[in-house]
Amino acid sequence: MNHAILLISCRDQKGITAAVTSFIFHNQGNIVHADQHIDEQSNTFFMRIEWALDDFRLKREDIQPAFAVIANTFNMFWKLSFSDQKPRVAIFVSKHLHCLYDLLWRHKTGQLFCDIVLLVSNHPDARKVADDFSIRFSEFIIERHNKAEQEKKQIELLNAEKVDLVILARYHQILTKQFIGHFESQIINIHHSFLPAFAGSNPYLQAYERGVKVIGATSHFVTEELDEGPIIAQDTVVVSHRDSLEDLKRKGEDLEKVVLSRAVRWHLEKKILCYGNKTVVFD
Amino acid sequence: MNHAILLISCRDQKGITAAVTSFIFHNQGNIVHADQHIDEQSNTFFMRIEWALDDFRLKREDIQPAFAVIANTFNMFWKLSFSDQKPRVAIFVSKHLHCLYDLLWRHKTGQLFCDIVLLVSNHPDARKVADDFSIRFSEFIIERHNKAEQEKKQIELLNAEKVDLVILARYHQILTKQFIGHFESQIINIHHSFLPAFAGSNPYLQAYERGVKVIGATSHFVTEELDEGPIIAQDTVVVSHRDSLEDLKRKGEDLEKVVLSRAVRWHLEKKILCYGNKTVVFD
Amino acid sequence: MNHAILLISCRDQKGITAAVTSFIFHNQGNIVHADQHIDEQSNTFFMRIEWALDDFRLKREDIQPAFAVIANTFNMFWKLSFSDQKPRVAIFVSKHLHCLYDLLWRHKTGQLFCDIVLLVSNHPDARKVADDFSIRFSEFIIERHNKAEQEKKQIELLNAEKVDLVILARYHQILTKQFIGHFESQIINIHHSFLPAFAGSNPYLQAYERGVKVIGATSHFVTEELDEGPIIAQDTVVVSHRDSLEDLKRKGEDLEKVVLSRAVRWHLEKKILCYGNKTVVFD
Amino acid sequence: MNHAILLISCRDQKGITAAVTSFIFHNQGNIVHADQHIDEQSNTFFMRIEWALDDFRLKREDIQPAFAVIANTFNMFWKLSFSDQKPRVAIFVSKHLHCLYDLLWRHKTGQLFCDIVLLVSNHPDARKVADDFSIRFSEFIIERHNKAEQEKKQIELLNAEKVDLVILARYHQILTKQFIGHFESQIINIHHSFLPAFAGSNPYLQAYERGVKVIGATSHFVTEELDEGPIIAQDTVVVSHRDSLEDLKRKGEDLEKVVLSRAVRWHLEKKILCYGNKTVVFD
Repeated sequence: MNHAILLISCRDQKGITAAVTSFIFHNQGNIVHADQHIDEQSNTFFMRIEWALDDFRLKREDIQPAFAVIANTFNMFWKLSFSDQKPRVAIFVSKHLHCLYDLLWRHKTGQLFCDIVLLVSNHPDARKVADDFSIRFSEFIIERHNKAEQEKKQIELLNAEKVDLVILARYHQILTKQFIGHFESQIINIHHSFLPAFAGSNPYLQAYERGVKVIGATSHFVTEELDEGPIIAQDTVVVSHRDSLEDLKRKGEDLEKVVLSRAVRWHLEKKILCYGNKTVVFD
Repeated sequence: MNHAILLISCRDQKGITAAVTSFIFHNQGNIVHADQHIDEQSNTFFMRIEWALDDFRLKREDIQPAFAVIANTFNMFWKLSFSDQKPRVAIFVSKHLHCLYDLLWRHKTGQLFCDIVLLVSNHPDARKVADDFSIRFSEFIIERHNKAEQEKKQIELLNAEKVDLVILARYHQILTKQFIGHFESQIINIHHSFLPAFAGSNPYLQAYERGVKVIGATSHFVTEELDEGPIIAQDTVVVSHRDSLEDLKRKGEDLEKVVLSRAVRWHLEKKILCYGNKTVVFD
Repeated sequence: MNHAILLISCRDQKGITAAVTSFIFHNQGNIVHADQHIDEQSNTFFMRIEWALDDFRLKREDIQPAFAVIANTFNMFWKLSFSDQKPRVAIFVSKHLHCLYDLLWRHKTGQLFCDIVLLVSNHPDARKVADDFSIRFSEFIIERHNKAEQEKKQIELLNAEKVDLVILARYHQILTKQFIGHFESQIINIHHSFLPAFAGSNPYLQAYERGVKVIGATSHFVTEELDEGPIIAQDTVVVSHRDSLEDLKRKGEDLEKVVLSRAVRWHLEKKILCYGNKTVVFD
Repeated sequence: MNHAILLISCRDQKGITAAVTSFIFHNQGNIVHADQHIDEQSNTFFMRIEWALDDFRLKREDIQPAFAVIANTFNMFWKLSFSDQKPRVAIFVSKHLHCLYDLLWRHKTGQLFCDIVLLVSNHPDARKVADDFSIRFSEFIIERHNKAEQEKKQIELLNAEKVDLVILARYHQILTKQFIGHFESQIINIHHSFLPAFAGSNPYLQAYERGVKVIGATSHFVTEELDEGPIIAQDTVVVSHRDSLEDLKRKGEDLEKVVLSRAVRWHLEKKILCYGNKTVVFD
């Protein structure tokens, strides 16, 4: 069954919910999920509403222009999607393949509604996995002198493949502003620490040396500031002096898998709204 | 600022949200919180909606009859409350006073919006605490032969004090059907295990003897079936062979405080809806 | 580097630790890990001690008889192992393959020190996975009339393969006493609930219908009493009314993988001691 | 029953455990707890060993010189304590009194083995609490010009009261090197974030503005570097966009109480060893 999904944000004001839900009701839509949130600090209204299209009186292509009238009244930022649209996904990876494997397994067992069309790496290690899962593999060796050039080719490839979402599943290259600018709010990264602690490289080593009693993982949208984008999901696990650096990595990798796949699933199900440098997640 | 709060449940059908939000909007109400949920198994719709009353065009006493028209259309179960209504609370306790102390401290620091009007116990131990916090203390020694009689007096006292909520903060007496029937959905208990495991008495001892690696606490509404009422809140904490029975109690008591106060706060803020033997918590 | 590992339990009495550590020291052993525990209720002493064998003055085969003298003095239950002995493992599975996949991936990446020599199933679904990982696959269709016969063949096969550990990675058949008796303390199961809650079949459905706010997973040794064996590892995750039965399964499966692999790793690293119906885990 | 407790650290080498446990055994001591740890990076050995003194052949005052012989052989850092020695504790607090209250309640119910001899504050708010629990209260108003002078008086007071441990239970003054130098490894602080994230002031506001999905609390020994001392205990709790800044504070305060009291209890039970900027906690 096909559903329409609206993600809305605007200045909070009277009548928004009434207007949106009346629009759906008067066109015979059946709301299956609705959630809203008001950020009191910034006086911003957020909404996610999803309705079944079976008896809906507007044709799919007529919903956008019809709703635009309401959206303009309230000066909304808004996005209309349909649950049968399968996002096209590219996964970027370096040498740690646990998140990659986990995403592919979840995809295979139906947990992630998308087409994984491309695997990109700066190393050859993931080629075998790509073959096992019948996914196109593209290796881009990145060196200091060729980074801009290689990224340009990557962008072309992603455009050619009509990619909607780039997942950095432990891709150990810092993307340039040029790249990030092409895929705004479309790149999700996993960082192996509870940000903002231990940003940058080697977070497990940093955590080990600091002697923390908890480690974490953070999934976030990628912005120009390294490890500073809006956080989507985080989780932590207890550690002790008994845990070696290797133990931290092992425990942390289990977290990374859960946290990254959670963020990706929420994004694919259109459950995330960004504002400022934060996210609202209607889970 | 005073708010009105509606808790609604009914068979899911088209137009409910539109009708409710339009009612508020057309009367100039400003929605500050709204959440809804559809239970697909039972096809039931749940809603909690809260709006500011400052510019609302209906007088407080006119809201109930005005909304009844809408409620009847959809055959709703519904309850209207106002955020300035302070519930009147009685706490029942036996000899373990940690939850009692915790609730009183939270109340004192403004976390719990209510009047704690009465402390009831089957032991004298809590009298000193009651005095410290200037709360009326009433001791009812319960023995096999006088239980029905004592409960009858308790009911009279609770009625005289116009009590809206009874909190069993480690009250180690099983209430009779007679008592429970007088306060349906108005009694919240803390049970010191993750129910349904270790129902009944001595759950920490049961957990210790079973050798579990996790212990928990459960807050639930009290129904006629012991420890079987709708669960409001639960939490767990990790234990190991290093933990003695005393350690389990100490760790567990920290959980109990958090879990019970969370459930009580949700109830006082009208965030809980019951259905069947479950709860929807719009936190 | 090869290590010797002693697991010891006996009635607590003076001088045990001194005797054991002096034995190692006087033979030039270097202790790399040592942990002990005293269960005060039963007055039982537990110890795990691991030492490097490089300069050890006793030959590998002479350690057992030499230590037996000390062990007899204290009337110890004890087991000597060597860290270079690779246990031989068989995995039993039915139709849910997430735990199987997870174990194979962890094995492949070096987290589990063992040889996985056999995959047994009552369904054909796992054959493809077995082939991908080059593991022998053996299908035993179990029906009411042939259960005893099939189990007999399974026992023969496990014996032929010299299997040290049987992992039930969501194997949905109840093993008979006959089978369990052949592999005492050598069968590890994952149960998809926080035992003792929701023992038996369909624990996610049971949890969903009870309306719990926390779900869990439990790994335990298999004994004749169904879901009653000594618990090795448990963990929980928070759920809410927003989670459908499918969501419980998805969240729960992530837990199962972590909990089962943790228990298996501890067992392979000789970190678990059983007593009564409990475990001491020297993690 | 009185116990002796040894905390030991030294370069790892053969025979340490044998020497220590033989010393105890040959003097007829009964070991009730023993735990050890080897930090492989720094090749450091750590041990905590506790034995009953009832039949011990050495008099209390003779243990120190007798053990010194062994300690010197291995070049140990070591500390001998007795379980009947009650540490003398001072609590410093400013305006947030939840941790103070929690510590006093735990002390009253027997969870913390110490004498709380002094309450110090830079505000008058806690005086009432001090009176309720019959603890000496001392107010030191701190202003820029008088800080050194006031701290000097505080040091004198702490010395006069023979204080062994200073607990900063949300004391919002930065202590000077002078003060910290007088109480090395004797000051435990609670910081209301998961350090190293959100060091410094207003961590809940920092966390709120960063939009994290997890908040935490950290208890650590105070060193000259602000919020950089060895971490003893940490814990985290999940938050979402639904949580206001006030909600973060409420949830965080519950964590703070648990984390601080855990660290204090471990310290009072002589379970903590520091090395470099880390802790070993033999819990």
